[in-house]
Amino acid sequence: MRKQADGQYSGYRQAGIRLTEEMVAALQPHRTERLLYTLPAIHAFDKAHLVMLTEQGLVSPADGRAMLRALREMEDEGVQAARLRVQGGAHSGEQYLIRALGEDVGGRMHLGRSSGDLGEVARRMTAREHLLALMSALNQLRETFLELAAAHLDTVMPGYTHGQHAQVTTLGHWASMWDRVFARDVARCLDLYRRNNISPAGAAIMTGTDFAIDRHRTARLLGFDAAAPHTMDAVLSLDNTVEFAGVVAAVAGDQARLAADIMLWSSAEFEFLDIPDRYCGTSSIMMQKKNPVWPEAAKAVGGQCLGALTETHASVKGATGLTLHERSLADARLWEVSTSLVARLREGADLVAHLRVDPDRMYALVRSRWGSATDLAGALVREVDLPWRSAHQIVGILVRWCEERRIAPEQVTPKLLDEAAVEYFGRPVGLDEQTIHVALEPRQLVARRTLHGGPSPDTHAAALTGFNAQLQADREVLAGLEAARRGGEQELEAAIDALLGVDRDR
Amino acid sequence: MRKQADGQYSGYRQAGIRLTEEMVAALQPHRTERLLYTLPAIHAFDKAHLVMLTEQGLVSPADGRAMLRALREMEDEGVQAARLRVQGGAHSGEQYLIRALGEDVGGRMHLGRSSGDLGEVARRMTAREHLLALMSALNQLRETFLELAAAHLDTVMPGYTHGQHAQVTTLGHWASMWDRVFARDVARCLDLYRRNNISPAGAAIMTGTDFAIDRHRTARLLGFDAAAPHTMDAVLSLDNTVEFAGVVAAVAGDQARLAADIMLWSSAEFEFLDIPDRYCGTSSIMMQKKNPVWPEAAKAVGGQCLGALTETHASVKGATGLTLHERSLADARLWEVSTSLVARLREGADLVAHLRVDPDRMYALVRSRWGSATDLAGALVREVDLPWRSAHQIVGILVRWCEERRIAPEQVTPKLLDEAAVEYFGRPVGLDEQTIHVALEPRQLVARRTLHGGPSPDTHAAALTGFNAQLQADREVLAGLEAARRGGEQELEAAIDALLGVDRDR
Amino acid sequence: MRKQADGQYSGYRQAGIRLTEEMVAALQPHRTERLLYTLPAIHAFDKAHLVMLTEQGLVSPADGRAMLRALREMEDEGVQAARLRVQGGAHSGEQYLIRALGEDVGGRMHLGRSSGDLGEVARRMTAREHLLALMSALNQLRETFLELAAAHLDTVMPGYTHGQHAQVTTLGHWASMWDRVFARDVARCLDLYRRNNISPAGAAIMTGTDFAIDRHRTARLLGFDAAAPHTMDAVLSLDNTVEFAGVVAAVAGDQARLAADIMLWSSAEFEFLDIPDRYCGTSSIMMQKKNPVWPEAAKAVGGQCLGALTETHASVKGATGLTLHERSLADARLWEVSTSLVARLREGADLVAHLRVDPDRMYALVRSRWGSATDLAGALVREVDLPWRSAHQIVGILVRWCEERRIAPEQVTPKLLDEAAVEYFGRPVGLDEQTIHVALEPRQLVARRTLHGGPSPDTHAAALTGFNAQLQADREVLAGLEAARRGGEQELEAAIDALLGVDRDR
Amino acid sequence: MRKQADGQYSGYRQAGIRLTEEMVAALQPHRTERLLYTLPAIHAFDKAHLVMLTEQGLVSPADGRAMLRALREMEDEGVQAARLRVQGGAHSGEQYLIRALGEDVGGRMHLGRSSGDLGEVARRMTAREHLLALMSALNQLRETFLELAAAHLDTVMPGYTHGQHAQVTTLGHWASMWDRVFARDVARCLDLYRRNNISPAGAAIMTGTDFAIDRHRTARLLGFDAAAPHTMDAVLSLDNTVEFAGVVAAVAGDQARLAADIMLWSSAEFEFLDIPDRYCGTSSIMMQKKNPVWPEAAKAVGGQCLGALTETHASVKGATGLTLHERSLADARLWEVSTSLVARLREGADLVAHLRVDPDRMYALVRSRWGSATDLAGALVREVDLPWRSAHQIVGILVRWCEERRIAPEQVTPKLLDEAAVEYFGRPVGLDEQTIHVALEPRQLVARRTLHGGPSPDTHAAALTGFNAQLQADREVLAGLEAARRGGEQELEAAIDALLGVDRDR
Repeated sequence: MRKQADGQYSGYRQAGIRLTEEMVAALQPHRTERLLYTLPAIHAFDKAHLVMLTEQGLVSPADGRAMLRALREMEDEGVQAARLRVQGGAHSGEQYLIRALGEDVGGRMHLGRSSGDLGEVARRMTAREHLLALMSALNQLRETFLELAAAHLDTVMPGYTHGQHAQVTTLGHWASMWDRVFARDVARCLDLYRRNNISPAGAAIMTGTDFAIDRHRTARLLGFDAAAPHTMDAVLSLDNTVEFAGVVAAVAGDQARLAADIMLWSSAEFEFLDIPDRYCGTSSIMMQKKNPVWPEAAKAVGGQCLGALTETHASVKGATGLTLHERSLADARLWEVSTSLVARLREGADLVAHLRVDPDRMYALVRSRWGSATDLAGALVREVDLPWRSAHQIVGILVRWCEERRIAPEQVTPKLLDEAAVEYFGRPVGLDEQTIHVALEPRQLVARRTLHGGPSPDTHAAALTGFNAQLQADREVLAGLEAARRGGEQELEAAIDALLGVDRDR
Repeated sequence: MRKQADGQYSGYRQAGIRLTEEMVAALQPHRTERLLYTLPAIHAFDKAHLVMLTEQGLVSPADGRAMLRALREMEDEGVQAARLRVQGGAHSGEQYLIRALGEDVGGRMHLGRSSGDLGEVARRMTAREHLLALMSALNQLRETFLELAAAHLDTVMPGYTHGQHAQVTTLGHWASMWDRVFARDVARCLDLYRRNNISPAGAAIMTGTDFAIDRHRTARLLGFDAAAPHTMDAVLSLDNTVEFAGVVAAVAGDQARLAADIMLWSSAEFEFLDIPDRYCGTSSIMMQKKNPVWPEAAKAVGGQCLGALTETHASVKGATGLTLHERSLADARLWEVSTSLVARLREGADLVAHLRVDPDRMYALVRSRWGSATDLAGALVREVDLPWRSAHQIVGILVRWCEERRIAPEQVTPKLLDEAAVEYFGRPVGLDEQTIHVALEPRQLVARRTLHGGPSPDTHAAALTGFNAQLQADREVLAGLEAARRGGEQELEAAIDALLGVDRDR
Repeated sequence: MRKQADGQYSGYRQAGIRLTEEMVAALQPHRTERLLYTLPAIHAFDKAHLVMLTEQGLVSPADGRAMLRALREMEDEGVQAARLRVQGGAHSGEQYLIRALGEDVGGRMHLGRSSGDLGEVARRMTAREHLLALMSALNQLRETFLELAAAHLDTVMPGYTHGQHAQVTTLGHWASMWDRVFARDVARCLDLYRRNNISPAGAAIMTGTDFAIDRHRTARLLGFDAAAPHTMDAVLSLDNTVEFAGVVAAVAGDQARLAADIMLWSSAEFEFLDIPDRYCGTSSIMMQKKNPVWPEAAKAVGGQCLGALTETHASVKGATGLTLHERSLADARLWEVSTSLVARLREGADLVAHLRVDPDRMYALVRSRWGSATDLAGALVREVDLPWRSAHQIVGILVRWCEERRIAPEQVTPKLLDEAAVEYFGRPVGLDEQTIHVALEPRQLVARRTLHGGPSPDTHAAALTGFNAQLQADREVLAGLEAARRGGEQELEAAIDALLGVDRDR
Repeated sequence: MRKQADGQYSGYRQAGIRLTEEMVAALQPHRTERLLYTLPAIHAFDKAHLVMLTEQGLVSPADGRAMLRALREMEDEGVQAARLRVQGGAHSGEQYLIRALGEDVGGRMHLGRSSGDLGEVARRMTAREHLLALMSALNQLRETFLELAAAHLDTVMPGYTHGQHAQVTTLGHWASMWDRVFARDVARCLDLYRRNNISPAGAAIMTGTDFAIDRHRTARLLGFDAAAPHTMDAVLSLDNTVEFAGVVAAVAGDQARLAADIMLWSSAEFEFLDIPDRYCGTSSIMMQKKNPVWPEAAKAVGGQCLGALTETHASVKGATGLTLHERSLADARLWEVSTSLVARLREGADLVAHLRVDPDRMYALVRSRWGSATDLAGALVREVDLPWRSAHQIVGILVRWCEERRIAPEQVTPKLLDEAAVEYFGRPVGLDEQTIHVALEPRQLVARRTLHGGPSPDTHAAALTGFNAQLQADREVLAGLEAARRGGEQELEAAIDALLGVDRDR
């Protein structure tokens, strides 16, 4: 049997078989270093495939046992270390077995399998782990925000649109908004999880094999929900990768908006929030600086995930099967950015849980601005039966005058309002001072917002009960997925135990 | 009441109210021309809001009736034409009513509403239409491919990876792969549809209103599944837009891969397919040209949708509420590209239904290449009990020699195979000629692929039954969504009839 | 000669010649509506090509004159209107001539030319116009900023990094930064202009023609600097399009940063700037709103151009010649976004010229914060010979204490500083009160920054002289390009006059 | 002086100075591991800054010498190893010096400098290295293509548009096209190089310093062409980064097109090219595979660079100074992808130099198709004075008939041509057989293309002389840049020698 000069088997790609030269090193797609994110999945597939081959009689019991035993020894050494040592990337399992047991035994493990299903199984199982971690981190963040919301049901603050004060609202309402956003993100992860958790194992490289493998068995051993019903589709379609990149970028975009809020609100000009020092840095020249590092890093992950999304889309452009290697290289970037995203989300939950809020600053700012003007127009509708638009225009004139003359909301008089009305349609409106001030008082505005979904503290408190219940339900779904995945792992180990005659219960 | 020089009401934004100058024309966000995609939704919301206001007693029965009657007159003129005439964009309804009925009546329609929920209702209802159209077009394409698959269960062709002949497969198997791909795309649309079809109406611009509106009623009249449970989230969160852009780009990417296959396979070098002349063009200088216009246009939509996706992501980067106008401008591009995508999908279904296929060319090509080599190695495993890897290497040497010496698969002899085996491990393998040729025969390879999901004609035919059943089920789901949407429309018109005292049944 | 049913010539693509069916309407790449941005260039090329053909004797003097005369008549009707009427897109000139003069004459105009060079000439000439407009708008903006800088040499304000107060600087220094940025953008446009302004005319579709055309003559008549030296490269390479998309996106990105500064600084929390009402809008529900529409629209153009850039990159992925139509569709988007970019830049110059600045607010904010802390550490280095890092750390402790105890910079005492020093290294530093306050005074900090490129008013004023001189020089270069382009136009008209025997001087 | 528990100085960021907690480890922006690409530049700046400080008397001669000597000792250890050991990232130089010499000496090195100019100097110097490497690799590739062009001046092949045979051309003409493309890419690199090679050193973090530093001296010692004339612009403007990302993506896009050509042409269906085995891989299941790894990897770099470009654009969106950290993280990705790009270009030059071409296959294919049809229409213009369009249409009919009836070009008879003419306009054209066949002969078509820039072997050979001369000139420019950069390095070492009293010449 052909060997390298050093007597070590180096994979089926060696020069002198199909090709006449070794591949240029920098291009090697099967370097183990490239596959650190997917190695655990590759290892699991190696074991499950061997179990299935042995059970099906496609390798002899003796060979099957020898190979499974060797893989358990590999685990004693450490899967990553051993596979880095023998190299071969996705094929490091076979390479290890051939070195350990010779080609006569180890050369039997890859029967009925290809780099195609190997790579795709690894991708889907790795995506599964990332999705589980994402959902877990998102749920943690939701819990933190629901707690913040409960603590700030009546912390009045400006709401913003177009970077300007819009309407008065509460910090609590802002906080529970994030539960809603991240709940949808969890749903997106879950939808993809279900599409993704279908086993390509046995699809080989589009036509499967004519050996009598049992794809359903392998699927079960790897914790998949089913075996993919089309072998070409299972390995040559790339849409799940694209969707994964899209979900990751969507979550990262949501987090980036949150980070932008926190960064803005902790500036000297806003001073709404103070974030824990452990998420900040200072400067080598400006020792006064407390730089908000987490918000910037969280925003950066948004850009990184958008970059990875673009790269993924670009990489899959081309005819069927033509872009497999491009896609693999894009996947490598996806695992990186997805890992960063999960890390930022977890830190974000801690940061949000430890925000220091300044309600006095928020209220003072709200009082000095016109975030309640809407309700003064509302009072004109309610009390004087003006059409909304007329009321709106009159208050518009009033606000312009007040801004020009530096008159604060609490200084508005019935006289001034009447002058604005006269300016608009030639007659006064006759609202009394009490009505004006009740309309413009920020806390009262919020208290009046009792509509479905609104920020009135009572209404909002009731809504939070529902949001918490949904979070609880989502966590149970997630726990179910994790249990199912663990179930696969246990079934796999039990099957190996059975083949090896190991009795764990004794 | 303030009027423009021409006595015509021109909207609440006129100079002299809040601001002192008219806005620079090119920046006007409320130009009706910009909103052609969303006008139907805006119109429906205008009606539903008025119905609800009237039912709740927030406008008097008389005013309510006058306004609803005027909107029906607008429909006689044509909604788009009338709204282009009066301008005002999202507020063209109010503008029309004020012109028609005076501000005393028409000025009452916008009570308890804002550009915020107006824009968001319009966006979600328009997204709903696009998603319904997408799902319908995708299902049509699936049907076409399932028919093509059934017609070509045994049309043998090369399968490709990395642009090279991989394994022998069938055109039918390739065709049914597209059913699988587009079925997942339908599922993506559906998942988003459900997240999207929640009503923001009444959320105004984040805190709703203190007037006693009924958000559930408006939601029902507009065909939404429910009223959004958080008013800030309903109008200031942007993740559904991002997901919509992502789904559109994912579908477009799948279609682009299909187009690349068709384009490649209709080249002079492949000659597998001929596409109908109505999807082709010629050249002003090269009169021999039959240029595949649809495939190029379909690939282009992939790039357009990726551009729109990137634009959408870039546009929403920023703090909450800061990027509303950027998002709106990005939406405008999304509607354009999504419309193109649906058009290409519909044309694509017609094109695929009328492809002219050349099975002889495919078979001849397959016969002359090594797409069956895998099964020669398989025969060595099966007949001589070689380890897979040894068999693989021996056939690898054989193929290299045959390529160097220009020996075709059907010319392989037992002797040559033995020489390769000797080269590999020093001894012959002794396979007979019949076994070799059965292993390498393309049709037989396909027939042997009876595994779950495989291309063997019988296995595949059985799978098609399942795929067709799923398509049927998906179409029923879609029909249900369309019925629910129509139900909302009917309920809205019935409510208007009731208020106006119209009896349609007479 | 074959005619359509209506007796009207409808282009060489009609069914019955090379192809058997008319192309599906929505796919038609040669619809004139798609080409509104490039029609003027197409028209110019039609004329120049005819002049050259006639001068070279490739069409007879009589035919040449008839066709040129007809094109001048088209100009009387209006080029766009006429070409929309006859349709044919890039080939509308030929279509017009055949309708006007019959195929016997009009059918001679396209000799030695192809859609390939037609499209590429149109693209390059249109890009030229966009680049000239961009450079002109950028230079205008630079002038505005240099004037703003001169007016605010000593308007002290906070400089920001990471969203926090960094160092004290001046509004003028911020303003002249933009001259530097946009000067580089002008240079980018200019570099591309020179690469772009090379004539593909006569390259046909990669091999040119064997008729004796004069490519140098056509190049000159169209204002190109030279004829492209490689006919395949001239029409099948796509890198200039990619570079154009990149330059447009880079400029748009710079403008987006400017817009973000202006938007932030005109918020209620900053209140540094007030922007003219004509660049603002208000709200249909919140009549107090003065929404900064230009900044949002300018940021949106950043996203649009990034989208177009991504689309362009995606569209050109593929083998040589394979993506021509995709590229054309991407170009259409580029013209749109580039036009928006130029419009926003021109508005931006007006907006910046009419900003209302509040120096008192800026100064008050600077005084209350620690943007001068660096110079207190500097004083410790200078007066007490501390190592920079020790001085930095001591002031770091001081600032933390002051923030905790709400002590303002002007309240810092020698005693407190000594306590911080003792905390750091166990001994006081003994700086006197006067030195501390001079170090922390914002205006004095700025005055001390006399280094090359620094914000000290005198240093900065001197630098502005240089910046203005460079602007003047850049404007002269631009004027030279515009003159050269006009020279081509004049030479073309003169050549037509000469052929037609028109004497303009009489 | 405050120390960490282990007595080791750990940077000015330690808890207890400005901030009260250590930063969360994963967020640390100043981890040396993140900066491997920029460490050499950071090291050079450390030395140049110290030389300048010492020469200016801002540190004492003794302290200056001690620090410079210590940095030379660091070089003995290995700059990367030492800086990884002491940590501190961009500040690892100071950290090293403080550990080695105590804060009393080492704490003096950072005077008049900031992370701002440190980061920006590092970025520009690193970009400089990448641009030099890019230009060098591009020039090498150009040389390879010019040699290929010279070797294949008369290797006739099909030219392609829209994936279909367009016109006959030569492989040599295709090859020299790449010289033109990559020459423009070199020009893009060069334009950016000049904009980039301006020193931000001394700009600190936007206002520089009031210590008497000499920015011009530092600039010279670092090989910059000048000191940046605006200190805020020098560190807070991000457009050069964006341009760098754009240039890298443009070059990668061009290479991806080349890779697509090579990949397509080495497919079983084309068989024009065979690429060296060292750029190929095989399959674990399909031993016949020779997968073109380099083309796929080169295309992948296109997607990676587009991703990095998008990430860069996204990362810089925001107000001035707000996105510094985002940009830094995006830069890290840029260095990675740019390094891959250069590697692929260098491999590409080797691959192209060793392509095996099959001219017979190309010619056979050309002969059997209609890539010369244009010239048959040309003959009708020339011989029978038909209008081009009439000739075009007649040949269009002819080709359609031939395709339908499977008639090859060499079988076209005068009679068939006349029938097509009769079909078109009712009369024959009377071209003789010899004229028809000369028109359609591929080699003669190419020989007739003698126009400026055309593929006729003689014309093309003359053009190659010019292209080679331009390559030579570009290489001299590049050599000049490299010499200037080395000059800076030498001046820096000489200045250190002078300060340390080292005499290298002895």
